[in-house]
Amino acid sequence: MTKHIPNLQVALDHSDLQGAIKAAVSVGNEVDIIEAGTVCLLQVGSELVEVLRSLFPEKLIVADTKCADAGGTVAKNNALRGADWMTCICCATIPTMKAALKAIQEERGERGEIQIELYGDWTFEQAQQWLDAGISQAIYHQSRDALLAGETWGEKDLNKVKKLIDMGFRVSVTGGLNVETLKLFAGLDVFTFIAGRGITEVADPAQAAREFKEEIRRIWG
Amino acid sequence: MTKHIPNLQVALDHSDLQGAIKAAVSVGNEVDIIEAGTVCLLQVGSELVEVLRSLFPEKLIVADTKCADAGGTVAKNNALRGADWMTCICCATIPTMKAALKAIQEERGERGEIQIELYGDWTFEQAQQWLDAGISQAIYHQSRDALLAGETWGEKDLNKVKKLIDMGFRVSVTGGLNVETLKLFAGLDVFTFIAGRGITEVADPAQAAREFKEEIRRIWG
Repeated sequence: MTKHIPNLQVALDHSDLQGAIKAAVSVGNEVDIIEAGTVCLLQVGSELVEVLRSLFPEKLIVADTKCADAGGTVAKNNALRGADWMTCICCATIPTMKAALKAIQEERGERGEIQIELYGDWTFEQAQQWLDAGISQAIYHQSRDALLAGETWGEKDLNKVKKLIDMGFRVSVTGGLNVETLKLFAGLDVFTFIAGRGITEVADPAQAAREFKEEIRRIWG
Repeated sequence: MTKHIPNLQVALDHSDLQGAIKAAVSVGNEVDIIEAGTVCLLQVGSELVEVLRSLFPEKLIVADTKCADAGGTVAKNNALRGADWMTCICCATIPTMKAALKAIQEERGERGEIQIELYGDWTFEQAQQWLDAGISQAIYHQSRDALLAGETWGEKDLNKVKKLIDMGFRVSVTGGLNVETLKLFAGLDVFTFIAGRGITEVADPAQAAREFKEEIRRIWG
């Protein structure tokens, strides 16, 4: 059986287009997936997605809209600008998720996917509904504000990630990750690690991304 | 006891800045609150808020970000451009909501408020936590996609709205509202009715807004 080596995704969570683009240029070629972060999308709009697509024609690009409603419209808007994947928040209705999936696949074909962002008190029964709707990617989060309030990755989180993987999800994990914390996930078939400031806000972002990739290969390779 | 007459809020849910601004100019003076809608914010960024503030210096302006994380950053970004209120999604963590409230009040003073957008399976226990965090506005939704899938306002919705009001929330309601459906809410102390296309996509938006206001006064005046 071939082992999957987790992807590395960089999240561009800047509040300005220039900062996000500068960070993207500095690390885009080192990572597998480039994310237009929610903070930046809300601040500058989907022009961010368009610029990323023009800079990186071949890379997977995610619009982290955390879409809660009007899934078809938001997915179409972002897919037209070049997003392959888009996120929906877990408390969106199933019709919203289905509409988003339909719209992104109409523009991007089979490359188009929806990812569910897990926040708050979602249930595994809901997770099964997402699978039934044709959505098999989920993002397990430690929220930035919860991290600032002192929470961290624990056994409870890892068990939930494992259960989602066992259900058939490809699971991305994110929130306060750095090269040292990757080993917490050893033994779990994580699909993608998402890092933001841990890569973009250091002196040499490309080198930081390479160190993430090396540690991922060391543990999962 | 003085009765509260519900506010009328127009939601600008366009996918382009020009359409949103044109709609705002056509009805802004007829409504109590102007909302920069999520679809439009994700598409053009918070410049929309800035333009609305410059056009309507005295009106209450809401940035409907449906913020799920990084509450402090998103609230600051929108407050700096002139938003008085901002929405958080109900599955955001309490630290996110508190960070958003703190940031918006730092920029806008007591006028600054956070509203919780109710989607999916929130609980009244969570609602009490929002009140305890100093947030007393909630938005009860019929999601656009659920409406398209055939759902509508029912007794179950009205009972939940009433319970939230009884807990101490000022509750806005939205989703497929028109002048004819307002009377479904008669007897409920609704804080604000939010309408989008029901106002902006008709031949005479200003007249449509006035008809909403007249019907509101007829029922609650």
